[in-house]
Amino acid sequence: VKLLTVARDLRRRKARERDGRFVAEGVRAVEELLRSPLTVRGALAAPQLHDAPRGAALRAALAARGVPVEEVSERDFASAADTEAPQGVLAIADVPARDYAAVPTSGAATVLVLDAVQDPGNVGALVRTAAALGAHATVALPGTVDVWNAKVVRAAVGAQCHHHVFHSTWDALAAFLDAASVVLWAADAGGAPPVAPAGARVALAVGNEGAGLSPAVRARADRVVGIPITAQVESLNVAVAAGILLHALRP
Amino acid sequence: VKLLTVARDLRRRKARERDGRFVAEGVRAVEELLRSPLTVRGALAAPQLHDAPRGAALRAALAARGVPVEEVSERDFASAADTEAPQGVLAIADVPARDYAAVPTSGAATVLVLDAVQDPGNVGALVRTAAALGAHATVALPGTVDVWNAKVVRAAVGAQCHHHVFHSTWDALAAFLDAASVVLWAADAGGAPPVAPAGARVALAVGNEGAGLSPAVRARADRVVGIPITAQVESLNVAVAAGILLHALRP
Repeated sequence: VKLLTVARDLRRRKARERDGRFVAEGVRAVEELLRSPLTVRGALAAPQLHDAPRGAALRAALAARGVPVEEVSERDFASAADTEAPQGVLAIADVPARDYAAVPTSGAATVLVLDAVQDPGNVGALVRTAAALGAHATVALPGTVDVWNAKVVRAAVGAQCHHHVFHSTWDALAAFLDAASVVLWAADAGGAPPVAPAGARVALAVGNEGAGLSPAVRARADRVVGIPITAQVESLNVAVAAGILLHALRP
Repeated sequence: VKLLTVARDLRRRKARERDGRFVAEGVRAVEELLRSPLTVRGALAAPQLHDAPRGAALRAALAARGVPVEEVSERDFASAADTEAPQGVLAIADVPARDYAAVPTSGAATVLVLDAVQDPGNVGALVRTAAALGAHATVALPGTVDVWNAKVVRAAVGAQCHHHVFHSTWDALAAFLDAASVVLWAADAGGAPPVAPAGARVALAVGNEGAGLSPAVRARADRVVGIPITAQVESLNVAVAAGILLHALRP
């Protein structure tokens, strides 16, 4: 099967789940993929890649790594690409097997929980933020957009290649919280400023952009935390709020 | 002139600057506009507004405020709308006259400076964040996307209706910093964690998503501040970084 056909097919969530593959598009995302331990299956390159900043170097790096590269026309590339003005490079990689084992079993631990966050740009920014601020894992609960969606990968600038982000059911999260002695903090307007003792083991949950937190998360939360804001706006952007709260949780 | 024609025209920056008008689209942005002191000139409503959450109430609020409302078809609305699945309401308002007078002349002061930030979603999130965290003003330097662009208004959820955000030249900013005794802090990777004494008067500058800060801002900066991040990612999203830094600057 041609890589172009595979890449087109992987634009559907069902195909990604069936094949256990995803697509990283654009120079920066593919660079991050190559820097990561993930298995890269192939890449597409279009002529405009040579005009992109660092494009020629990336093309060479793909070849040096032995990644099969299929050269396609600008038009064919556009048919598989997610962006409006594609840089002419995408790579197909295996979705890594990940679970709660990424969280240390003792000492300080920080986990970000995405409770039905729907906007791909927000989820990408959340994954990038969790990775940057040293969270051990990010858990996407049902209702959250697929973290291997091309828009999410782009918004995260490929951070999901390094950071342990994975989908989980609520039951699996609840079992982990019990087994690993991790407390659940729910972020909500009107919550108290977060103050974490040294060595705290915390899972911080952020909710849906419109509906907020799910009943299951609210019911289980050990504490509701938030950031005081002015009356000028209704709320902070979810990634900005998570950034401030995760920063406050850092040792 | 029909409001539909005006709204279509205002999608161009040149038209917004010539007329001193902008468009707020969607239920939440128009609600914020009506809550603000800005002068509303008219609105367009399409049939689907009655199906949107709070849509009927907003339609009634426009009528109660005496705003001229033009009823248009879903198709005509789409021709003026910026979104792919429009909620069927937009309003045309005057761009407010704003300048550095919004910043208190004594006591604590916080100003956010956008140094050629180009992505409309980022600029919207920055304005929303500055408003939420109590900055006195946000200044958009040349190279920054128009803060009255429909995408920016949507990403800010209408925060620019309340928060004092305006465009400025570098010379005007430099003159303000001198006259008002405000120090310039530049946000950059590798900068020191920000520690502000009580009553600090600070302008925090964030740079372009790719190129970073401009030479003028770098040269003038009294301090370079930043947030330590892991090696997993190259940088934080600019709105997330500004959120963490502005939060640290709060009294």
